[in-house]
Amino acid sequence: MAGPEIERMVQLLARLPGLGPRSARRAALFLIKRRDSLLEPLGRAIAETLDRVRACSVCGNLDSADPCAICADPRRDETMLCVVEDVASLWALERSGAFRGRYHVLGGVLSALEGVGPEDLGIPGLVQRVAAGQVREVILALSATVDGQTTAHYIVDRLAGASARLTGLAHGVPVGGELDYLDEGTISAALAARRPM
Amino acid sequence: MAGPEIERMVQLLARLPGLGPRSARRAALFLIKRRDSLLEPLGRAIAETLDRVRACSVCGNLDSADPCAICADPRRDETMLCVVEDVASLWALERSGAFRGRYHVLGGVLSALEGVGPEDLGIPGLVQRVAAGQVREVILALSATVDGQTTAHYIVDRLAGASARLTGLAHGVPVGGELDYLDEGTISAALAARRPM
Repeated sequence: MAGPEIERMVQLLARLPGLGPRSARRAALFLIKRRDSLLEPLGRAIAETLDRVRACSVCGNLDSADPCAICADPRRDETMLCVVEDVASLWALERSGAFRGRYHVLGGVLSALEGVGPEDLGIPGLVQRVAAGQVREVILALSATVDGQTTAHYIVDRLAGASARLTGLAHGVPVGGELDYLDEGTISAALAARRPM
Repeated sequence: MAGPEIERMVQLLARLPGLGPRSARRAALFLIKRRDSLLEPLGRAIAETLDRVRACSVCGNLDSADPCAICADPRRDETMLCVVEDVASLWALERSGAFRGRYHVLGGVLSALEGVGPEDLGIPGLVQRVAAGQVREVILALSATVDGQTTAHYIVDRLAGASARLTGLAHGVPVGGELDYLDEGTISAALAARRPM
């Protein structure tokens, strides 16, 4: 229907989360229509990302510098280490602006079903970083899913001998959340962790 | 937060229809995770599209060949000319497989509001193609919007002297459509154009 170049671009765009075959066609035409303002810059951004962006050898974050900007920033507290599943979680925490320590990106969670074991994740690296002695608190900021919590428990076991304090994110009502729309598990957790006002 | 290369990619992806700032971040990480299977091929597809894809000088379709594959195909009926707004409409018609003639892509519709006049569209080119004499029927396959229909009427006026027959797409109930969900205009049009069964 369209030329092979466009068809190829449509097929690849259709694999992105949030785009289906139809919206990928629309996106491809949108790009081609904006050749100079969008298609060409996107091609350049992809080439530069391919050329420069790597996983940080310290924490696993993605950056063009290694160690990454966060690991290299002397203003960030190196006694606090936040363990996250992936770079998306790291970005979410950075957006909140509430954490000024360093990160450790696991690159996934333990999953028997998908055959992901501790060695596939950054867990040995995490144990080493904590054993080095500078870290005083490890915050496990993993998803509140079965696999996320299994991973958190596994890490707690592995770090049992370390002197660092281990903490996890609080469960409760999301800010702006209506009780009516919340699941029972969240409501129970919020109730159990109720605080004086 | 992320490096400048990733940030740039996120910003550009966020401009695509169907992606917002959040889903653009997700898409960018998804791409970087699939470096060899997705990011690199997408970069290559974009480079090839930039390099080869052009608007066909005859009909305005996008292709790496000029004239495009449709204009160059001798099996397609050159006496039938279908006028469409944009390449997305052309693709939609091709998907239906119901039309085996040639196309003329206007590149938009007349719009007083957005200052789009006949010269901005492919209308002079259309008049020329029809005046050449080979076309026996011009099918106006434009959107059933005010601007689309204004454009159709303008084209009918401009082609008044030509020998070609002018037709438009039928209005009616979409196949699979439930009457309950249809607007009154469509129902009135379907009723007025009712057919013996």
